[in-house]
Amino acid sequence: MNAPLDLVVRHAHVATASDCFDADIGVHQGRIVQIGASLPAGVREIDARGRVVTPGGVDAHCHLDQPMEAPVRMADDFDSGTRSAACGGTTTVIPFAAQAKGQSLRAAVADYHRRAEGKAHVDYAFHLIVSDPTPEVLQHELPQLIAEGYTSFKVYMTYDDLKLDDGQILDVLSVARDHGALAMVHAENADCIEWLTRRLEAAGRTAPRWHAHARPMLVEREATHRAIALSELVDVPILIVHVSGREAVEQIRWGRAHGLPIFAETCPQYLFLTAEDLGLDDSYQGARCVCSPPPRDRANQAVIWNGLRDGLFTVFSSDHAPFNYEGTEGKQPGGQEQPFRHIPNGIPGLETRMPLLYSEGVLGGRITLEKFVELTATNPAKAYGLHPRKGAIAIGADADLVIWDEGERVIRNADLHHAVDHTPYEGHRLRAWPACTLSRGEVVWDGQFHPRAGQGRFLPCQTPTLWARR
Amino acid sequence: MNAPLDLVVRHAHVATASDCFDADIGVHQGRIVQIGASLPAGVREIDARGRVVTPGGVDAHCHLDQPMEAPVRMADDFDSGTRSAACGGTTTVIPFAAQAKGQSLRAAVADYHRRAEGKAHVDYAFHLIVSDPTPEVLQHELPQLIAEGYTSFKVYMTYDDLKLDDGQILDVLSVARDHGALAMVHAENADCIEWLTRRLEAAGRTAPRWHAHARPMLVEREATHRAIALSELVDVPILIVHVSGREAVEQIRWGRAHGLPIFAETCPQYLFLTAEDLGLDDSYQGARCVCSPPPRDRANQAVIWNGLRDGLFTVFSSDHAPFNYEGTEGKQPGGQEQPFRHIPNGIPGLETRMPLLYSEGVLGGRITLEKFVELTATNPAKAYGLHPRKGAIAIGADADLVIWDEGERVIRNADLHHAVDHTPYEGHRLRAWPACTLSRGEVVWDGQFHPRAGQGRFLPCQTPTLWARR
Amino acid sequence: MNAPLDLVVRHAHVATASDCFDADIGVHQGRIVQIGASLPAGVREIDARGRVVTPGGVDAHCHLDQPMEAPVRMADDFDSGTRSAACGGTTTVIPFAAQAKGQSLRAAVADYHRRAEGKAHVDYAFHLIVSDPTPEVLQHELPQLIAEGYTSFKVYMTYDDLKLDDGQILDVLSVARDHGALAMVHAENADCIEWLTRRLEAAGRTAPRWHAHARPMLVEREATHRAIALSELVDVPILIVHVSGREAVEQIRWGRAHGLPIFAETCPQYLFLTAEDLGLDDSYQGARCVCSPPPRDRANQAVIWNGLRDGLFTVFSSDHAPFNYEGTEGKQPGGQEQPFRHIPNGIPGLETRMPLLYSEGVLGGRITLEKFVELTATNPAKAYGLHPRKGAIAIGADADLVIWDEGERVIRNADLHHAVDHTPYEGHRLRAWPACTLSRGEVVWDGQFHPRAGQGRFLPCQTPTLWARR
Amino acid sequence: MNAPLDLVVRHAHVATASDCFDADIGVHQGRIVQIGASLPAGVREIDARGRVVTPGGVDAHCHLDQPMEAPVRMADDFDSGTRSAACGGTTTVIPFAAQAKGQSLRAAVADYHRRAEGKAHVDYAFHLIVSDPTPEVLQHELPQLIAEGYTSFKVYMTYDDLKLDDGQILDVLSVARDHGALAMVHAENADCIEWLTRRLEAAGRTAPRWHAHARPMLVEREATHRAIALSELVDVPILIVHVSGREAVEQIRWGRAHGLPIFAETCPQYLFLTAEDLGLDDSYQGARCVCSPPPRDRANQAVIWNGLRDGLFTVFSSDHAPFNYEGTEGKQPGGQEQPFRHIPNGIPGLETRMPLLYSEGVLGGRITLEKFVELTATNPAKAYGLHPRKGAIAIGADADLVIWDEGERVIRNADLHHAVDHTPYEGHRLRAWPACTLSRGEVVWDGQFHPRAGQGRFLPCQTPTLWARR
Repeated sequence: MNAPLDLVVRHAHVATASDCFDADIGVHQGRIVQIGASLPAGVREIDARGRVVTPGGVDAHCHLDQPMEAPVRMADDFDSGTRSAACGGTTTVIPFAAQAKGQSLRAAVADYHRRAEGKAHVDYAFHLIVSDPTPEVLQHELPQLIAEGYTSFKVYMTYDDLKLDDGQILDVLSVARDHGALAMVHAENADCIEWLTRRLEAAGRTAPRWHAHARPMLVEREATHRAIALSELVDVPILIVHVSGREAVEQIRWGRAHGLPIFAETCPQYLFLTAEDLGLDDSYQGARCVCSPPPRDRANQAVIWNGLRDGLFTVFSSDHAPFNYEGTEGKQPGGQEQPFRHIPNGIPGLETRMPLLYSEGVLGGRITLEKFVELTATNPAKAYGLHPRKGAIAIGADADLVIWDEGERVIRNADLHHAVDHTPYEGHRLRAWPACTLSRGEVVWDGQFHPRAGQGRFLPCQTPTLWARR
Repeated sequence: MNAPLDLVVRHAHVATASDCFDADIGVHQGRIVQIGASLPAGVREIDARGRVVTPGGVDAHCHLDQPMEAPVRMADDFDSGTRSAACGGTTTVIPFAAQAKGQSLRAAVADYHRRAEGKAHVDYAFHLIVSDPTPEVLQHELPQLIAEGYTSFKVYMTYDDLKLDDGQILDVLSVARDHGALAMVHAENADCIEWLTRRLEAAGRTAPRWHAHARPMLVEREATHRAIALSELVDVPILIVHVSGREAVEQIRWGRAHGLPIFAETCPQYLFLTAEDLGLDDSYQGARCVCSPPPRDRANQAVIWNGLRDGLFTVFSSDHAPFNYEGTEGKQPGGQEQPFRHIPNGIPGLETRMPLLYSEGVLGGRITLEKFVELTATNPAKAYGLHPRKGAIAIGADADLVIWDEGERVIRNADLHHAVDHTPYEGHRLRAWPACTLSRGEVVWDGQFHPRAGQGRFLPCQTPTLWARR
Repeated sequence: MNAPLDLVVRHAHVATASDCFDADIGVHQGRIVQIGASLPAGVREIDARGRVVTPGGVDAHCHLDQPMEAPVRMADDFDSGTRSAACGGTTTVIPFAAQAKGQSLRAAVADYHRRAEGKAHVDYAFHLIVSDPTPEVLQHELPQLIAEGYTSFKVYMTYDDLKLDDGQILDVLSVARDHGALAMVHAENADCIEWLTRRLEAAGRTAPRWHAHARPMLVEREATHRAIALSELVDVPILIVHVSGREAVEQIRWGRAHGLPIFAETCPQYLFLTAEDLGLDDSYQGARCVCSPPPRDRANQAVIWNGLRDGLFTVFSSDHAPFNYEGTEGKQPGGQEQPFRHIPNGIPGLETRMPLLYSEGVLGGRITLEKFVELTATNPAKAYGLHPRKGAIAIGADADLVIWDEGERVIRNADLHHAVDHTPYEGHRLRAWPACTLSRGEVVWDGQFHPRAGQGRFLPCQTPTLWARR
Repeated sequence: MNAPLDLVVRHAHVATASDCFDADIGVHQGRIVQIGASLPAGVREIDARGRVVTPGGVDAHCHLDQPMEAPVRMADDFDSGTRSAACGGTTTVIPFAAQAKGQSLRAAVADYHRRAEGKAHVDYAFHLIVSDPTPEVLQHELPQLIAEGYTSFKVYMTYDDLKLDDGQILDVLSVARDHGALAMVHAENADCIEWLTRRLEAAGRTAPRWHAHARPMLVEREATHRAIALSELVDVPILIVHVSGREAVEQIRWGRAHGLPIFAETCPQYLFLTAEDLGLDDSYQGARCVCSPPPRDRANQAVIWNGLRDGLFTVFSSDHAPFNYEGTEGKQPGGQEQPFRHIPNGIPGLETRMPLLYSEGVLGGRITLEKFVELTATNPAKAYGLHPRKGAIAIGADADLVIWDEGERVIRNADLHHAVDHTPYEGHRLRAWPACTLSRGEVVWDGQFHPRAGQGRFLPCQTPTLWARR
């Protein structure tokens, strides 16, 4: 190799999902080409002495610029969303391309490409949301799209406009099996939620905090058990998203103990929020924390921490779903306080995901640094066919890196870079934040954001490599 | 870096416990100093094009030259044992320094150093076997030895000359907790085994196959549950060795689901042998496969495979315990066929451990290559405080490497390098074998064994890094 | 009491669900009025010396004269069905009054009364089958019918013409809770069955044996878990009918261990048949044993036996569903061998239920005599609000009694009294059969059948007394 | 039957373990000879109109006049103990005949007979405590004593003077299996308790409340698991006594789910006391509630209630162990406040057992009346071979009856009849108390105690009838 390295990140304390060691990282044309004890000088140099360097985060569960029923609108598009990601150490996002009922999947994909085009500051891929598995979708569109790099799709067991019945889920899983894709499942029992919601409404219980009562743990547990059974029937892996607590965790443990390839994801809200954040009284403030499943309680937080430590969870994502609290387009649709049924579900989290887990998980002594990398970067990249290009500090991988700054810092929405007018973690004390984020060798964040709109590229996904294939 | 690299392993398909990627590996003074896309020429070069390169194996459970009750003698000393290890892709062994009752631990350690000195072809560390936890041992010897690099010890719940009662185990675990060491537990209920053995003997059932009847799964399950309870009481991690099947696995899953730091090891004999290998009739041939716990059945093999895949098991070891079948010193003590009670327990396996798991696990589609590395090298190195010096392909790590040759090969004891006169896997078809093993940058095996007796060094162990520390 | 007893059953070895003792039983006007060591002479006397006398059986799950889709017709009406019951020791039957979709429940009840009127030889009550829970049904019909003595109803999670969705089940359970009724649940996942059936059909697998493949244990397990969750949500007891094996049993144990009032029933087919009885090849003979859930295997039989012994099961019923094998109206609808989808589900069993369990359970040493009484008579009477009038040998109870004759006997359909042309137990060896069956003090069977058509009375049911009420 | 009945209990609302019904109960020579709707006049009559009548209680776990290490002495002998029992509705007691190490079992039995002779007001049997299972005991004494009516024995896994090791327990269980006896197991891990006690003592934590810390749930869970394993190995039923909470319950559920004949007992202290009753500070008052296992917390109380309701528990006993609080012979041995290690273990409860469960269980809506009878009378009688003579309202049974008076009453030690100077339930509000207790037809309590010292007879026990025998 004659040409000098474009960039050397020097004296890094490198952490991968398996090993921590001291090294320089050499970058050429946006890729890692050398890792060594004492690399020759690069055109640019970044001194990381005394600092942990991890792969850039892969946020495999986030919603950006997804069309909602009017007047609701997501606050983040691909510009603000990926800006926010970059500033929080995430260099790959995998939002959803959602099929509307009646729409072709391909049309949905085309629409989302238009939304992302020219806007993204970091690289992105798409999961598909399959809401209308017609024969055309099952037999032609899905197989073709999988071949083109859309190797994961999500099915919903709740939400009227998205939910599939068990037979439809079996059909979709069957495509995943035949074509080597991975299905993500939102597991909550729609009928139970509707039944409880009506009861609560009939009793005048419509404040945000009742949202949690309309979705108790058992509705998640039941759907989780059912999703596992459907996966078992088809004999195909699934990944259960945003697992919130003990009862769902127990079902997943049951599946794993029986040899079933059930993977699972959890999110910061299940570690750092509780149902009390939805309100202790009928105040509307709690609307900010309305998401599904709802946060549970401290005992369930402990169960989730244990699942992260012990290997139950494969992936740690944000489930970023950006809605403003103020204004007419978000948590107060039409500008009104609404019964909880009509409050858009979701909370922002792209930017805080990595620092929260680094602070409380790694520096809080709950998980190892390797586990942190595995959960936030390596495993999501493997699960969705982006590894080892993403999620790794390895030769040939994209030079997506985070250099960590350990030190106290308080989360303030004013400091965040999303377009949402609040964060549920306002005032939360952190012990670390990215000092520098590199996307394909370019600094996008070093205390200041360096915009690269349009330089974030679409990533066609390969077959998942999370599990062995016979 | 001006001096040329001592060695470049070129065009390797590198596998770590987290990532697989193509790179050259540069070695200087026995350590990996560069990993890169296209490294400059080394003094020596090894072409690994098209081949998987993994970290050298760490066999964390093996018995070498351990004194036995006369006339029994182990067939392997540190010369033949580490030779065999090297030829099978294992570059670090951690045998036991066993305390005899009444003996000081330090004396035991000194004795084992004498046995190893000048003989080992690969690096080695020692676990301590604590059979006599006197106040002196608990208060002085153990803490000092931990500080000197003996950071793991094993306690036995069975075997008359080794077993501790529950109170003694609590005392030993308490030292592990206070001084950051890791206790390994051999979990079988001694009283149950003795009771069953007497019953079997009274009925004239003394052929080797009755050994399995004297140690049914429940004696392992019970002791596993008890060990977990003792660990929970002291609030310290333990590692349960040689787990054989479903009932023990279920106990460990229970512990993990309850947030307890219970780690577990399994061995090839629980994947590839069954109780039938101890004999279907009263033939003495089965004495070769007498080990404890005994191999179970095919359904239990499947449970063990699932535990390897799913993360239940942390470590995959050989439990190499080398006894000849013929002669007077091994399976026929005094040259006689003996009742099973008197047959030395243990089977050889240092050399076949890695190829068996690579063949049936990785190439058989049961586990990923990353998982193979994790189980055979990275995790044992972490568990016993040798990581990242051992168990990693990373900058600064020892250049302990295995270059794999995929292709059919049949196990023949004649081809193996241990001093044992048989292998339980005679005739087993493999799909891979190490083409080359490097120990600190030196080729010890490349189809031929290259002796380095005395160049294998003692490795003082650090604190385990398998789990996070609050 | 001056008038002599109408009847004395003398020297009985009386068995209740709690106690066995020797006594005479005195009957007046069809009721038990005295139990004593040495009762005065009755007008009639029956000598039971040396014989066990149990309460007459209560078969709480049977189908009689239930309208089917043409040309299928049930072989047994209330005449032949209750005749068969009486000859097998069952003195109370609780068949179903099934609502057709669109039909009012009251109309269904009236229809079934017409079918029973003047025909029944033993007493009967009705469960309701709710297939169309309209607001009218939920708010008016069900509450009124409960008040009138129809205190149990069944919901189906499968069968196109009967199944309810989860929201409908919640509505029905809610009525059960508010009005003190008991809901029975047929737990199989309809979508899974339909999906599998289509796959099997597409592969040309339509012989009877494929019926078992279309309804594997997991479709029962999933629905069982879901039913438990729905019960938990509404906070009301349910009774899961015809539980077939391990996976469903495990779900029920889970619910019970968590304090949920989940009751369960099993049937003879899950003790004495296996899926092999549906055929080992594509022969149509197995159509005789097509029922849902299908019989499983011997390991599952053992699980069911354990559940009977250990208290998991509350009720042992026949699920008698009488279809001829020959002819056009039964297992060969239209006289043709049909794909399994079109084979009427169900097998006859009213007459053999008690003798099978007495023989294999009591005399086979698996359950106590008291447990036999509990499962076959006392508990079903309690579950459906007929106790202590039925299911008890107690003062004031109806004199419904069975005097048992222990001795070998082979089941032959020719000897049975139903109108079905076969029994799945043809050739099965029994160790006991009722020597005499008394219904309200009248002998209906003593080796010969003594018809009492029209003397069997409708029994309005009270609130269940199976569980305590706070 | 010409002679008039000696006694008629008229208009009783009779409750058995299976049925509740209205009847008169006729007694002749101390036995129930008639149960009827309208019995002829008896020589004596008791009007029970409007009152529940249950079988007299069988307290299968109580300690009376058991020699202790000086100066400790039990406060109750057979006089005061059985007086107290009678006044609380218990008509059969089964205290222990405890073998001292070195003593022959037969000598122990003879000693206890002397202690009971001429003193007991109600009938009694003996369990044996086997503390020294010598070959003589195992091969001769135990088999002979079983044949003579001592069909149950208890083994201890803790207490220095009583505990057996696992091998000894296997030997004793083996005798139980061969001779049809039932072994009771006190399941706590002795080594763990000793280890914790020493730690607590070293830290100066010796007040009564630390007793609970020395015996956390896990020491009970571990021993429970072990006892189940030993029972499984020998293939014989066992009964685990005084189960205190969730973790032990889960082990028992596990055993039962796997088809093992594991029976279990619980006691009032696990429903009505918590560890807080041992003291919130270092006050010595809590010594009154020192018993083993210690009471747990409210969540565990709920688990125990669920186990009573759901059939997990077979038997509800007092574990009456009578030690005065004041004086030199009880909770303050030598008249001094002692470290918890030296506080005699046990609390009084013979008299309050039945009223507590009737009040909170039956009238509190947690269990049915039938379940109350089963737990307090029928099942203990069956478990220990006294049924149907005891524990039943049935023809031929002893006329041991309790007529209940429902109404508020506060427990005051001053009102109790034991010789202990306190009750742990002082001030507890009850909803019922026996209006009248009959022992073999004689009134022993009707608001006043009617002494019958010496008329309580020794009951030789038969083989248990709790489970079926193949």
